[in-house]
Amino acid sequence: MRLLFIDQLVIPVIYFYARLPAGSSSVSQGQTVVYTVVEVNEGQGYDSATGRFTVSVPGLYAFAVQTCIPAKQDIWLEIVNQNKTLQRASFNERSTAYPCVSMHVFTKADVSDQIWVKAAYSNSQLYSDAYRYTSFSGTLVHL
Amino acid sequence: MRLLFIDQLVIPVIYFYARLPAGSSSVSQGQTVVYTVVEVNEGQGYDSATGRFTVSVPGLYAFAVQTCIPAKQDIWLEIVNQNKTLQRASFNERSTAYPCVSMHVFTKADVSDQIWVKAAYSNSQLYSDAYRYTSFSGTLVHL
Amino acid sequence: MRLLFIDQLVIPVIYFYARLPAGSSSVSQGQTVVYTVVEVNEGQGYDSATGRFTVSVPGLYAFAVQTCIPAKQDIWLEIVNQNKTLQRASFNERSTAYPCVSMHVFTKADVSDQIWVKAAYSNSQLYSDAYRYTSFSGTLVHL
Repeated sequence: MRLLFIDQLVIPVIYFYARLPAGSSSVSQGQTVVYTVVEVNEGQGYDSATGRFTVSVPGLYAFAVQTCIPAKQDIWLEIVNQNKTLQRASFNERSTAYPCVSMHVFTKADVSDQIWVKAAYSNSQLYSDAYRYTSFSGTLVHL
Repeated sequence: MRLLFIDQLVIPVIYFYARLPAGSSSVSQGQTVVYTVVEVNEGQGYDSATGRFTVSVPGLYAFAVQTCIPAKQDIWLEIVNQNKTLQRASFNERSTAYPCVSMHVFTKADVSDQIWVKAAYSNSQLYSDAYRYTSFSGTLVHL
Repeated sequence: MRLLFIDQLVIPVIYFYARLPAGSSSVSQGQTVVYTVVEVNEGQGYDSATGRFTVSVPGLYAFAVQTCIPAKQDIWLEIVNQNKTLQRASFNERSTAYPCVSMHVFTKADVSDQIWVKAAYSNSQLYSDAYRYTSFSGTLVHL
């Protein structure tokens, strides 16, 4: 009984960090951003084939999305849990620059919930190169 | 004795996410940004009447502020704890875009501390619509 | 045996927040950004002489870097652990504004690992003033 209690307090290390390969890409409204370059995937929750993170341990999670945008392009992205919006942001780049910005969310998630990044509105243009990472990461904060 | 010890280790789920309703708004220097659309408020720490989060459980907290800015406008925001500055940022949008950016802070907070977002300097123009959320969120990370 | 187990579950408060003094500065490729104004340094992990955070307690950490950029300048920054890239971002400011943006990473770190911020590519121009903080912060999330 006591051991079970203690087990419930140990926070497993669950975190992932995935990014886009170098180049430009476009996601249309509703389409998932699939980050195929997986740098870390402790707990194996992130699936680079679907772009989705699946929760195996219920708890409080933090997610961070960094996006770099090509010159004179737009992004309209959202972070969703089971297709329910958690956070939404846009960035419209009007100059010749390729800036990177980020959006974030904390959320309580249950076993088998799936969290992913998708285009919330018309086409979003994403960019990644050796010095600008367009990435999706998340971690279990506590049980 | 042992049970008290174990109780102290259980991290309660405390997190909130609130945002502005669609539209533009302006906050003058020193004025609090009151995020009235409350999506989550586990632990009931966030008060949508005042814009302030009140700590009921002492510990290490993370706060994230996402702000979208109307075309050709400025923001000058800060996150404060009991009116003491924790983080400050500006963004000056010179083009016709409505970009979203974010600022963040980790802080240790005591019972009854209040954390909120305010305009640190002259007028800040905030914007929110269906695809751009101007939001304030926070979570207890650990005790 | 049981006490040791419980000790291993107590998450020490380790977090820091440091920023640049007011003014402009430049870092060349490979150079560390040394944030000399230390606002918080619980656990004494951050060294304002070197700009590096040294891990004394192994665990899962979160780091946040906020950077303000002078008008018409560029930043190319990365967060590294033992010189291994964890996150990279650029921001190219083409107008007369001084915007602030942020980048973030979660990472598992071992005792004596060092985490810092450096210029990943040619010159990066950093700016800080009373209303715009160019800062580096981090916290232990859990063991």
